[in-house]
Amino acid sequence: MKYTGWKIISDEFENGNRQSKDALFTVGNGYFGIRGFFEENGEAAVGNGGIYVAGIVGKGFHKSYTGKSRELCNIANIFRVRLSVNGNGINGTEVSDFSRTLDMKNAVYSRRYIWNNSVALEFSRFADMADVHRVGQKIVVKSLTDNNKIDLYALIDTDVVNLNKVSCEPLPIQPGRDHITERKIGANSVETVLDDEDCTRLYAAQKVMAFINGKPVGGVAYADSRATGMRYGIVLARDDELVIKKVAAVYTSKYEPDAKEETAAFLRTDIDYDAVFNDSCAEWEKRWNAANVEIKTDTDDDTAVRYNLFELMCACPVHTDKVSIGARGLTGEMYEGCVFWDTEIFQLPFFIYSDPAAARRLLTFRYNTLEQARRYARELRMEAGAQYPWQVSEKGIEQTESSAGFFSVHLMADIAYAIKNYVNASGDDEFLVSMGAEMLIEIARFWEKRSIHSDFDGYYHIMTVRGPNEYSPIVDDNAFTNYMAAQNLLYAVAVADMLESDHPQEYKKLAERIGFCRSEIKKWKDIADNLYVGYDEKKHLVAEYPTYFNRYPFDIKKYKPTAKRILESGTPYDFLYFYQITKQADTVLLMCLLPDLFSDEEKKAAYEYYEPRTVHDSSLSYAPHAWLASRILKTEEAYAYFKQCAYLDINDMKLNAVSGIHFANFGGTWMSLVFGFCGISFENGVLKIDPKLPEKWESVKLNLTCRGENIHIEVSKKGVKAFSLSKDSKIKILCEGNE
Amino acid sequence: MKYTGWKIISDEFENGNRQSKDALFTVGNGYFGIRGFFEENGEAAVGNGGIYVAGIVGKGFHKSYTGKSRELCNIANIFRVRLSVNGNGINGTEVSDFSRTLDMKNAVYSRRYIWNNSVALEFSRFADMADVHRVGQKIVVKSLTDNNKIDLYALIDTDVVNLNKVSCEPLPIQPGRDHITERKIGANSVETVLDDEDCTRLYAAQKVMAFINGKPVGGVAYADSRATGMRYGIVLARDDELVIKKVAAVYTSKYEPDAKEETAAFLRTDIDYDAVFNDSCAEWEKRWNAANVEIKTDTDDDTAVRYNLFELMCACPVHTDKVSIGARGLTGEMYEGCVFWDTEIFQLPFFIYSDPAAARRLLTFRYNTLEQARRYARELRMEAGAQYPWQVSEKGIEQTESSAGFFSVHLMADIAYAIKNYVNASGDDEFLVSMGAEMLIEIARFWEKRSIHSDFDGYYHIMTVRGPNEYSPIVDDNAFTNYMAAQNLLYAVAVADMLESDHPQEYKKLAERIGFCRSEIKKWKDIADNLYVGYDEKKHLVAEYPTYFNRYPFDIKKYKPTAKRILESGTPYDFLYFYQITKQADTVLLMCLLPDLFSDEEKKAAYEYYEPRTVHDSSLSYAPHAWLASRILKTEEAYAYFKQCAYLDINDMKLNAVSGIHFANFGGTWMSLVFGFCGISFENGVLKIDPKLPEKWESVKLNLTCRGENIHIEVSKKGVKAFSLSKDSKIKILCEGNE
Repeated sequence: MKYTGWKIISDEFENGNRQSKDALFTVGNGYFGIRGFFEENGEAAVGNGGIYVAGIVGKGFHKSYTGKSRELCNIANIFRVRLSVNGNGINGTEVSDFSRTLDMKNAVYSRRYIWNNSVALEFSRFADMADVHRVGQKIVVKSLTDNNKIDLYALIDTDVVNLNKVSCEPLPIQPGRDHITERKIGANSVETVLDDEDCTRLYAAQKVMAFINGKPVGGVAYADSRATGMRYGIVLARDDELVIKKVAAVYTSKYEPDAKEETAAFLRTDIDYDAVFNDSCAEWEKRWNAANVEIKTDTDDDTAVRYNLFELMCACPVHTDKVSIGARGLTGEMYEGCVFWDTEIFQLPFFIYSDPAAARRLLTFRYNTLEQARRYARELRMEAGAQYPWQVSEKGIEQTESSAGFFSVHLMADIAYAIKNYVNASGDDEFLVSMGAEMLIEIARFWEKRSIHSDFDGYYHIMTVRGPNEYSPIVDDNAFTNYMAAQNLLYAVAVADMLESDHPQEYKKLAERIGFCRSEIKKWKDIADNLYVGYDEKKHLVAEYPTYFNRYPFDIKKYKPTAKRILESGTPYDFLYFYQITKQADTVLLMCLLPDLFSDEEKKAAYEYYEPRTVHDSSLSYAPHAWLASRILKTEEAYAYFKQCAYLDINDMKLNAVSGIHFANFGGTWMSLVFGFCGISFENGVLKIDPKLPEKWESVKLNLTCRGENIHIEVSKKGVKAFSLSKDSKIKILCEGNE
Repeated sequence: MKYTGWKIISDEFENGNRQSKDALFTVGNGYFGIRGFFEENGEAAVGNGGIYVAGIVGKGFHKSYTGKSRELCNIANIFRVRLSVNGNGINGTEVSDFSRTLDMKNAVYSRRYIWNNSVALEFSRFADMADVHRVGQKIVVKSLTDNNKIDLYALIDTDVVNLNKVSCEPLPIQPGRDHITERKIGANSVETVLDDEDCTRLYAAQKVMAFINGKPVGGVAYADSRATGMRYGIVLARDDELVIKKVAAVYTSKYEPDAKEETAAFLRTDIDYDAVFNDSCAEWEKRWNAANVEIKTDTDDDTAVRYNLFELMCACPVHTDKVSIGARGLTGEMYEGCVFWDTEIFQLPFFIYSDPAAARRLLTFRYNTLEQARRYARELRMEAGAQYPWQVSEKGIEQTESSAGFFSVHLMADIAYAIKNYVNASGDDEFLVSMGAEMLIEIARFWEKRSIHSDFDGYYHIMTVRGPNEYSPIVDDNAFTNYMAAQNLLYAVAVADMLESDHPQEYKKLAERIGFCRSEIKKWKDIADNLYVGYDEKKHLVAEYPTYFNRYPFDIKKYKPTAKRILESGTPYDFLYFYQITKQADTVLLMCLLPDLFSDEEKKAAYEYYEPRTVHDSSLSYAPHAWLASRILKTEEAYAYFKQCAYLDINDMKLNAVSGIHFANFGGTWMSLVFGFCGISFENGVLKIDPKLPEKWESVKLNLTCRGENIHIEVSKKGVKAFSLSKDSKIKILCEGNE
């Protein structure tokens, strides 16, 4: 892998196993996620593509708690190319000078190679960030020898199946389900019906132009029972160059009531590929202006970090607030496209500080599914409040395979925490009034129902939960859950107070609608003040859960000899309950998220105790370790963890990138850099910067959006520079304690 | 159902659903278990029989923890009869005057009915208690009209399949697997090979005699591809009586190395049905002399209790110590014939006090599988000690479906408790020296490995267990487990001391063989003295586990509206973890088993707290409630629970007797009567009797075997009479405090 600032380049061809890298080269725009598959003459599953549209799901295989299952659909392949040279279909042999490149600046993925020493090929593609329904594809065929007879089809191909979510390395992808139940093939357009319960319709259309040495050349319309498009039969002389430029569009009955008409309109309109591309680049420029991070270093970290941010932006919906970002974004079928706490705790902070409107949409998704969360709480016998499902479909419905989802209640804390986080950074009180307060009240009610007062010890307890550490048994009083819940309750009280005093009419309406009365608040305060957490006074050690310390030590080296997860190394799940073993940052993450509640001594104690007991069997684990380690001045240990984050998918360290890359970790990379190494925090209009850069870094430059202002920050070994780009800035900046 | 002292009589025919009662009418002798199926012209599964031989298992369907599964085999039907009258096969219609009777005195099951108003039929059978390889069958056909042409085949029929363990009411039995892979059909004998991993061979042979009006009459040998036997074609005049008397024998390569030869010898020998029957009756008379309980009452309790004891004796192996009694004995395929703690805690006390040799065999089964238990402990990463599998095959191997079996560690306590119980009552020190001590030491080592010392509170904790209450999450410090474990440890210390001083040579040999050294004992004492148990001082309430009190209350009426188990009433398993809900007697049982460790106040507090929170979703629950209730002077509440025990299967209260009757409960019935109502205890040579009889009972008479002496006890409203039948009795008897 080569890193050149804005580009990541791989020249490994690895034909037999190339799909392992496909997810890594995903481009997208929040509507589309397009894996880096090979569009030309792909064989079987490998050639199926991997193009997902946010929220477009079909019938699934896995059993969900509710019995209904669904999975992301691999939609019709709008990039399909059939290409032969002198009658020979190009294939994976006779390939030389191969490389594939991700240009993050313009969000273009391209591949080049020479085939059979006769033609130089280049395929590039992008997802239009200006009009998210569109994608662009460019194909260049340059003849290296005399008289090459080229036969090229530029197609939309409905002959696809899913890639199968259970595919994992080193296995190649195993074909999954064909979700298309009905196909209507038109001229350069198709209409497909999916096998989901709504019988969602997808329309795809394309405009193709061809040029030889810059001059337009005509093609022939082509269609068969499954594909449609243009065919170009051309003879190229040495050095002749055939260029195909294609813009395709996809509309769906899910989002666009007039999807069919919009498709027709697209076909009627003149489309200029270059203009579309330029518009997309311009949009990306805006995003990068707000989001880019520059690291001055002789490592590849600068590019690697950029990659993390790039994929986050590719996955973030801009067209709707009816979907959110799944654990694997739109890059693979693992977790069926579902949304977890990953979004609120790991991905959201990047958006909060670089694209607040996007952050608001992601939170609005939770508001849009609040009614489902209320319903779920009732199903779980809770008379009030809302319980968001752990693994949630775009419809807000629980998709966890077992019933275990309903123990992972920290999700409620995570959502409330994210609301506070967003409002704090954006100053978007309107969100709080129109949506946030209602969510916060329902979550506070959830905690009220979920905590039990013990006459025995006088404390409240949150019983029967699973914290972030999913290798524990079902436990009581998980510190992460209880601390976060207490903060939620206090914040709900504050927001209810603010609403009543500042927005009395809205307060009254809301209170009436959800039957809220002020007397509830008293109980919330009482719970928040008296939630039990295990604590070892001597060691200043917060207990992940009170009985953690009484379990057996676990021999990680022996039972996790490789990067494979423990469960795949022969230890059954239930077995883990015996041990002091933490799957992923739990108490360590807590101290990252609520740094002011713990002393340095406690942070250090927690890190030093839990870190050796943590097996990092989740991609959510490295970032909090980097983050907390940097805050307790273990800078180089922090940097080692940071490397795990920044290169996690690039180096396929989890051995499962084939099924999708890890979006929580992308956000984690950003947080460990910004909150960890740069020591940035923002609260109540005050931005604090207290950096501890790793040895290898000379400086970091970045922009943050706070309360509508664009703050430019430069951190270097020599010092900190930070200023607002707004006139009349209301933000106070404290650098290493100085204003 | 009618009850007449020694007999239970049912005159319900219920042709469509008759197999529900089949298990209830099981006869057996520890080698055979023979359900009360109809042997004549049975159709499909209903006619398959249900004849099990202890330890004879085939390939199973269910997934066990170890991956290998097995299930009790329904062996060849050695009672099969084909019968037609005037060319019409008798069938389930045209039946009148039907009754079936279990004569417990002689252990005979018989059925009578009139068919088609033309013949009166009687089928009876028994399992020979004198020679357990044998069974007897008698068939009487009495002609009620003129000239009935009878065609009767008395067969051994290998055309059987299993009854299918998942059969449950109200569903009829669904046919299960055919376990026979090879059949050799001889003259009145068959050889079958089973599909188990040992390819076990079973040999069955029969001798059939026929009589008309008492005079012998000849038959014709018959054989087809699956069955063999005798055929009798006879014309009966009005009032003529055809009587068939058959003795069949079964030998197996599993127990009898010369099984084939023994079968041949059986065929060569003259067998007199009546002599066989008389020998069996004589043997049963001995058993009843030791075991019978007589209740003077105007209820049916006397007969009902007798039924409980009868079935226990039918299931208890007398021929070997290589098998034990399964949860459903040999009466159905539920739990695949496996052995649980049911044996040690619930069934064993009856045998200890009525047939100590049988009790010793049952405990020897555990000694025979000790090596497997050591191996299991190693698999579970325990460097020392033995862990007996929770649901154990006759080979000592874990058969629990999930991995959850290894949390239910109270089994170790139960086995050690049973050893102490047996040795205390029998005085069999030889057992202790040759087997008991070794088991106790390995169990003590198990507890040593399984308890963890907490620096935090100074206590030892037994973490990550499931107590008898299987509706709890995995918990820490289950009081039942911890109290019982502490007793085990102390007893192991005492036995090791005794062995060293009284049997120094055996002690030395054992210590060498298992690497035991005295220094281990110190730790055991320390653990026993400092095991943590949750306790509410104010309420004098022992916590089932420390966090039980902090859970939600459970609305039993709402969520368990019928006798169906909660899981079958729509509440998922995981859901139960939220609640104060106890599946079956847990702390209540603890106080029954270790009455001297708890004050009356504590017993009362435990009963009153847990009883309303207990859903009795196990047949093991009623007896401890009857027992403890009677001890805390809630006599009539105790009696209500006692009724649940004594009639549990007779009234099919668990709605699953079709898959086998409940052997732990049978033992529980005896315990609640003897230890509960009669208040009998025996310790260190002192027998105490402190009765609280229910209102409905005038008196109870029973015999107990203590230290080789037969003690006769009569308890009545007027007082207690008790004396040893031995001269030179060494037993001190205390009646209501008086000697």
